[in-house]
Amino acid sequence: MAEFKLDWARAARTGGSEAVLCESKSAAQIDAIVAHAQELDRRLLLTRLPEALFAALPAARRASLDYDAVSGTAVLGALPAPRHKARVAIVCGGTSDAPVAHEARRTLAFEGDEATLIVDVGVAGLWRLMERIEEIRRHRVVIAIAGMEGALFSVLTGLVACPVLAVPRSVGYGVGAGGRTALRAALASCASGLVVVNIDNGFGAAHAALRMLGVAPSPVAAVPPP
Amino acid sequence: MAEFKLDWARAARTGGSEAVLCESKSAAQIDAIVAHAQELDRRLLLTRLPEALFAALPAARRASLDYDAVSGTAVLGALPAPRHKARVAIVCGGTSDAPVAHEARRTLAFEGDEATLIVDVGVAGLWRLMERIEEIRRHRVVIAIAGMEGALFSVLTGLVACPVLAVPRSVGYGVGAGGRTALRAALASCASGLVVVNIDNGFGAAHAALRMLGVAPSPVAAVPPP
Amino acid sequence: MAEFKLDWARAARTGGSEAVLCESKSAAQIDAIVAHAQELDRRLLLTRLPEALFAALPAARRASLDYDAVSGTAVLGALPAPRHKARVAIVCGGTSDAPVAHEARRTLAFEGDEATLIVDVGVAGLWRLMERIEEIRRHRVVIAIAGMEGALFSVLTGLVACPVLAVPRSVGYGVGAGGRTALRAALASCASGLVVVNIDNGFGAAHAALRMLGVAPSPVAAVPPP
Amino acid sequence: MAEFKLDWARAARTGGSEAVLCESKSAAQIDAIVAHAQELDRRLLLTRLPEALFAALPAARRASLDYDAVSGTAVLGALPAPRHKARVAIVCGGTSDAPVAHEARRTLAFEGDEATLIVDVGVAGLWRLMERIEEIRRHRVVIAIAGMEGALFSVLTGLVACPVLAVPRSVGYGVGAGGRTALRAALASCASGLVVVNIDNGFGAAHAALRMLGVAPSPVAAVPPP
Amino acid sequence: MAEFKLDWARAARTGGSEAVLCESKSAAQIDAIVAHAQELDRRLLLTRLPEALFAALPAARRASLDYDAVSGTAVLGALPAPRHKARVAIVCGGTSDAPVAHEARRTLAFEGDEATLIVDVGVAGLWRLMERIEEIRRHRVVIAIAGMEGALFSVLTGLVACPVLAVPRSVGYGVGAGGRTALRAALASCASGLVVVNIDNGFGAAHAALRMLGVAPSPVAAVPPP
Amino acid sequence: MAEFKLDWARAARTGGSEAVLCESKSAAQIDAIVAHAQELDRRLLLTRLPEALFAALPAARRASLDYDAVSGTAVLGALPAPRHKARVAIVCGGTSDAPVAHEARRTLAFEGDEATLIVDVGVAGLWRLMERIEEIRRHRVVIAIAGMEGALFSVLTGLVACPVLAVPRSVGYGVGAGGRTALRAALASCASGLVVVNIDNGFGAAHAALRMLGVAPSPVAAVPPP
Amino acid sequence: MAEFKLDWARAARTGGSEAVLCESKSAAQIDAIVAHAQELDRRLLLTRLPEALFAALPAARRASLDYDAVSGTAVLGALPAPRHKARVAIVCGGTSDAPVAHEARRTLAFEGDEATLIVDVGVAGLWRLMERIEEIRRHRVVIAIAGMEGALFSVLTGLVACPVLAVPRSVGYGVGAGGRTALRAALASCASGLVVVNIDNGFGAAHAALRMLGVAPSPVAAVPPP
Amino acid sequence: MAEFKLDWARAARTGGSEAVLCESKSAAQIDAIVAHAQELDRRLLLTRLPEALFAALPAARRASLDYDAVSGTAVLGALPAPRHKARVAIVCGGTSDAPVAHEARRTLAFEGDEATLIVDVGVAGLWRLMERIEEIRRHRVVIAIAGMEGALFSVLTGLVACPVLAVPRSVGYGVGAGGRTALRAALASCASGLVVVNIDNGFGAAHAALRMLGVAPSPVAAVPPP
Repeated sequence: MAEFKLDWARAARTGGSEAVLCESKSAAQIDAIVAHAQELDRRLLLTRLPEALFAALPAARRASLDYDAVSGTAVLGALPAPRHKARVAIVCGGTSDAPVAHEARRTLAFEGDEATLIVDVGVAGLWRLMERIEEIRRHRVVIAIAGMEGALFSVLTGLVACPVLAVPRSVGYGVGAGGRTALRAALASCASGLVVVNIDNGFGAAHAALRMLGVAPSPVAAVPPP
Repeated sequence: MAEFKLDWARAARTGGSEAVLCESKSAAQIDAIVAHAQELDRRLLLTRLPEALFAALPAARRASLDYDAVSGTAVLGALPAPRHKARVAIVCGGTSDAPVAHEARRTLAFEGDEATLIVDVGVAGLWRLMERIEEIRRHRVVIAIAGMEGALFSVLTGLVACPVLAVPRSVGYGVGAGGRTALRAALASCASGLVVVNIDNGFGAAHAALRMLGVAPSPVAAVPPP
Repeated sequence: MAEFKLDWARAARTGGSEAVLCESKSAAQIDAIVAHAQELDRRLLLTRLPEALFAALPAARRASLDYDAVSGTAVLGALPAPRHKARVAIVCGGTSDAPVAHEARRTLAFEGDEATLIVDVGVAGLWRLMERIEEIRRHRVVIAIAGMEGALFSVLTGLVACPVLAVPRSVGYGVGAGGRTALRAALASCASGLVVVNIDNGFGAAHAALRMLGVAPSPVAAVPPP
Repeated sequence: MAEFKLDWARAARTGGSEAVLCESKSAAQIDAIVAHAQELDRRLLLTRLPEALFAALPAARRASLDYDAVSGTAVLGALPAPRHKARVAIVCGGTSDAPVAHEARRTLAFEGDEATLIVDVGVAGLWRLMERIEEIRRHRVVIAIAGMEGALFSVLTGLVACPVLAVPRSVGYGVGAGGRTALRAALASCASGLVVVNIDNGFGAAHAALRMLGVAPSPVAAVPPP
Repeated sequence: MAEFKLDWARAARTGGSEAVLCESKSAAQIDAIVAHAQELDRRLLLTRLPEALFAALPAARRASLDYDAVSGTAVLGALPAPRHKARVAIVCGGTSDAPVAHEARRTLAFEGDEATLIVDVGVAGLWRLMERIEEIRRHRVVIAIAGMEGALFSVLTGLVACPVLAVPRSVGYGVGAGGRTALRAALASCASGLVVVNIDNGFGAAHAALRMLGVAPSPVAAVPPP
Repeated sequence: MAEFKLDWARAARTGGSEAVLCESKSAAQIDAIVAHAQELDRRLLLTRLPEALFAALPAARRASLDYDAVSGTAVLGALPAPRHKARVAIVCGGTSDAPVAHEARRTLAFEGDEATLIVDVGVAGLWRLMERIEEIRRHRVVIAIAGMEGALFSVLTGLVACPVLAVPRSVGYGVGAGGRTALRAALASCASGLVVVNIDNGFGAAHAALRMLGVAPSPVAAVPPP
Repeated sequence: MAEFKLDWARAARTGGSEAVLCESKSAAQIDAIVAHAQELDRRLLLTRLPEALFAALPAARRASLDYDAVSGTAVLGALPAPRHKARVAIVCGGTSDAPVAHEARRTLAFEGDEATLIVDVGVAGLWRLMERIEEIRRHRVVIAIAGMEGALFSVLTGLVACPVLAVPRSVGYGVGAGGRTALRAALASCASGLVVVNIDNGFGAAHAALRMLGVAPSPVAAVPPP
Repeated sequence: MAEFKLDWARAARTGGSEAVLCESKSAAQIDAIVAHAQELDRRLLLTRLPEALFAALPAARRASLDYDAVSGTAVLGALPAPRHKARVAIVCGGTSDAPVAHEARRTLAFEGDEATLIVDVGVAGLWRLMERIEEIRRHRVVIAIAGMEGALFSVLTGLVACPVLAVPRSVGYGVGAGGRTALRAALASCASGLVVVNIDNGFGAAHAALRMLGVAPSPVAAVPPP
């Protein structure tokens, strides 16, 4: 019994590609999925693939993948050369936000977009953000990543005119644990025009940015052509 | 003691406009704000202004406002003629979503953008959505509004390529009360690229759409020029 | 002191069987329960028995059990030959739902019912579900399993006429963690006639399906006959 | 702009009927929906229609409806004569559960099924339930309604062999307020085979019962025939 | 039976005064408490006294009180002349924060301290705060009041060196409703040295400020002297 | 169809009595219940009967009841003369706790037990509690009632040797709203031997006290004698 | 710096004893506490001492303790001979409740009271409870332990006349995880007179039972005699 | 790409120092931060550095740090000699509070302030607190640390006149788990003037105390001077 069914229809029609969330899948399932993509000669992006799970794949399979431990992502197939100078700025409140920032960066790179990474501009030392704000403004979309109280989202949205995508980060303790406070702060923000994705969802933020830049693959119809 | 300070600096610089959230403000505060805008000859959008609160304003003030009871919005000054044919589709799961849909529509209109309103396409009768999907695809941004379990968000995001903005709606009872389930469903969606704003926040969704369309006013710097 | 008391009265009266939830029990307790069933020559279904706990049983006891690691279930005694062609369809949103799907399948098999397993039909690629919908409709009961936002439940319930049993799955992260969002979505569904069991409760869904098919053993009266 | 779109396709195909949840709709919206159904000569079930909202409808419209204040339901068109003796037992923990019990009863009646109503059999005085248990067992489906701690669900499920549908009731105070504790108790029940619908959802429980009895109308396909 | 027992022992010993939270008390109880204070010739501060409850007091009692409707406070006895120029700055994110700001201001005034009120400096338009920051820095304690996402707390704490007391405000909707998000944001703040009181607790913030300024009355020992 | 079934079996067997929770019942239901008790010549205790609901009963019915507005209780039939001097102390943190304190007192009185009421001994002024502690110690059971943070429960339990029953009170605002914090504080108390009932449940605390004093009526068996 | 201060004052005055909660303490802290008790020749009860933490104590210290792994308790000093036949019944819903049941039993034994342990009488098979109910009724206090939905608490309280102490058990999954549902069910119970302690708090239930039996040591006054 | 940006501007201007929260950072990140500080010859305080993470640093780096395992803190550079006798009292409910107490103590010491540590004065044995209350009163600020129900906060605030800073402690189980109950109790306290920081935030409490003592470094302006 086949236990998975990738959405190649979408890829076939759009020249686009397929991504697989590895969390909650077994090594055997992931191995079978990658093998299947290799047979079809497809590119594939694997996300939320922790080191231990990557290590549990057969050596030959591992060798076929470009793995990045910080972001927990692996790429099957070549990364396209960037088509533009960076149109997306990824702005982080602190160094702990790196895993999610890199997940977003890799997802963009997989589709041929570079990103500018700007780190450690939390609002407790506001001048750090102000020093970089002109650079941030030169991008068409901003992905903002912050944990704890997420005040960065509101401050940043008040300072730029382009879309700001908030990615709450599961960094913090006590009431800040798990990113719930940063999530709520992003949703309740007094700065209008801020939009939000799930906690730690760098992949989703990158896909939303691609939709805004007009490069997302067209989803297929409910009933595919014969 | 002046109890309010509108952000005219933003308006002065951008040709844009100012909006006021009326909820939690007294009729006296709202009256003073509108009077101040009239003195400066500024346009103003008032949101979350229920009928009882509008009725508590002085008659002369009410006469200066274009009030819409369904959306609870009022406009001071003329609405600009639409600059484009509709670039934004507002898609609702049910008739109960009308207040939020119209808040978004009025906010767009205030900035000179028309929207296409598509109602009652909840997923329990999927054919209703499929009948309209080609029409929806002709827009550059989709604002989706749904309460209860919010399954519309995921289905719709899987069917269009442009950005989809989810506005969870505080419609429902039991575990669906207050829009919390629809909000969580939007954030946890398996459809990548979906972005979310606060429950019932039609105003914020419209502003995010404007940012995506590139017509949002540039926010001012932290320290305004002298 | 005897630390357990199985409900053999129910089994004695109905020709049915007994199941034991192993989670939170020690290996010693489980071993004693199985030994007791063996002495009485009873069949027994063990659920939520992870590999480590199974491995902690004495080798002889392990040898008497038919253990399935994916579902975490073990069967003491022979599985009955299926009495019908599959009357229950088990429909999964993704490959991560396999453990729960197989727990349901094994529970049905223990009572002599086959099930059809249909995987990876999540709503983000709606055509995958539409390809299989006629097959699904040929069953008398549908068990639907989905994590994340659980949109599958509403879409599926709108497409079939038979009872649909939603099993929310503890797959996801951020607001989707632990299956709470999928659970709420199932309960708040706009599709009428959907019923829900606890998160990950494949066993309970199978038992409910058996009750609907009319094959559940009659529970005994509060005061059993002498 | 038409603000509603009823799912007559379902009705046309199945001889079935349409229901409208009135909560969160305006009197004007409800009036328009009923008028539309009258034009098409369709039967209609209105639920969650409180007395004040019913009173806000035009007198002529009210006259066309069979309104029941306890359940907050109204019927347009004739109720069919019951096709069977009661196949569904509706079992309530207390007198406060009457509104939900009657919503379920009316929904069943609208589709031609009678129900037996059994009240005030809460588990604090267990003999009250035991006196009626044989009568309850003579039905094919049990709808159980209870608020507070919802212990009735588990006890009852252990005493009957047919499907039991739990409807948690928003009756109680403190930790029991809003029906959340009864809902959780139903989901976490130790009695296998119990299924659950949303708090106060008598309508949904009745529809699920109809699906189990095999009389639910077939939902239409996603793309209706031309 | 006497239903209240004011803590005059504290007052007697310290030259301080007594405050009464009126919420959840009946008009009869409040009337009796004020009468008792009048008999003893004591000053008294009443808080959370809404207009309707104040209006329910006997006219003579009302006449003895200095009532302020915005803050919902009433003072029995003379307000002392301010002993210092303002040592406390009360900083508000928006005009909706006025009731809590004035509760804090009145509580300080009751103890002889003036406060500087600075309104509408929310972070979405950061320049408004920067214009006033030097003025804010001239105070010894800052009470910051903000609803919605409460980003003001972190930004402000990063800009001043004195103690900052966050008072989350129950202003907002959706996830911001009830002030819970602002409260969590204050507690999870990345700005070290921020301290927090309960939602809307302007009275408590003022008392904490007085303790920091060294003017709080000494509480009495557990066993008072004879 | 009879909509209620009182548990007279318990009363018949024990000489005890029956109580009715009026919240969530209609005036018609309450009227019928009292009428039924009058026909059978039974005593009856009605709880959670607010003034408006009491006023909605027919005048003749009201005349048959001894109604107390503070506690929201009504008694049908004579109160027994107290059989003992007070064995239960009811200790309140503040004057706002009076409704629950009196519900407990009335429930005890209905069964023939007096109680000592001790008010306004909150821990913020510890000497008030210490002044009364010897008096409290002379009772066999203590019912403690407190809202807000409920610190009284732990302090009191550390000072007496008899059973302490905590009744959290739905008094407070912000995080203290609804009595949830007081409830959690009682359950998490560091003082061993404290037991807890639901928020505002003065009736339940009184019944638990009666069980501890050995005067509770014996519940009947599951299957009553013929 | 001494890091602990046992409450020997209580013990000195009452002939009673001291208990130490080991969870969250280091092995070094526990070792020092036991050593201190040995020096003073005091008896001591250690609770929530898992096997790994016990094993981390020095061998000599371990040898001085009577350790029980199921309950995670250790006793320093001799257990007194039971003074009565069992006055407390400990009633469990399932075998998974054993650790808490034994914690209660050992705590009672430490104070010289035996208990009767009755296991596996969950309400899904009601006859198991009915078989033992007469035996349970012969005790003066009942400690009831149940996880999942906790229906046992209400059923049992309706069947006995003595005090029933509910101990919710952290057994279950999904909405039953952590014992929260059982806790809420106990608090919201429709059976009057039920009292509740914290989840898994067998120690606290035993102490409450001792208070009810009149054998709890008198706590000391706030200011101990010189 | 530099992944961190310390706020040396603050330090440069104030003679103050920088602190780094290590939780959620990798050993490589921490190593780089310390190396950078060493190059600049700066002092540094590392917090929330568990033993395993400290052990993962290079040996040479470890040798440069003064590490304290109880508090999980490390200091780079010399600790200043205390400038005053202790002005801050750190008061703990139990021995389990030691890690947080020592985090606060070390943070104060890093800035040149000693603290008095007072342990095991939980309110269940009130005399332990009363014995030390005069000593506590001799300090200018009190940091109170308590888990479970946090009753210590209210009792202590009622007994001293200086500012009291509550640090809820993540010690406890059931409803007390994670420190949430102690946090809510501190916020809902009936003792006016109590202020609160996040759960386990000993560092933040120390910084708030330093602000109250007037020794906190002045934060820099948003746009630093050139």
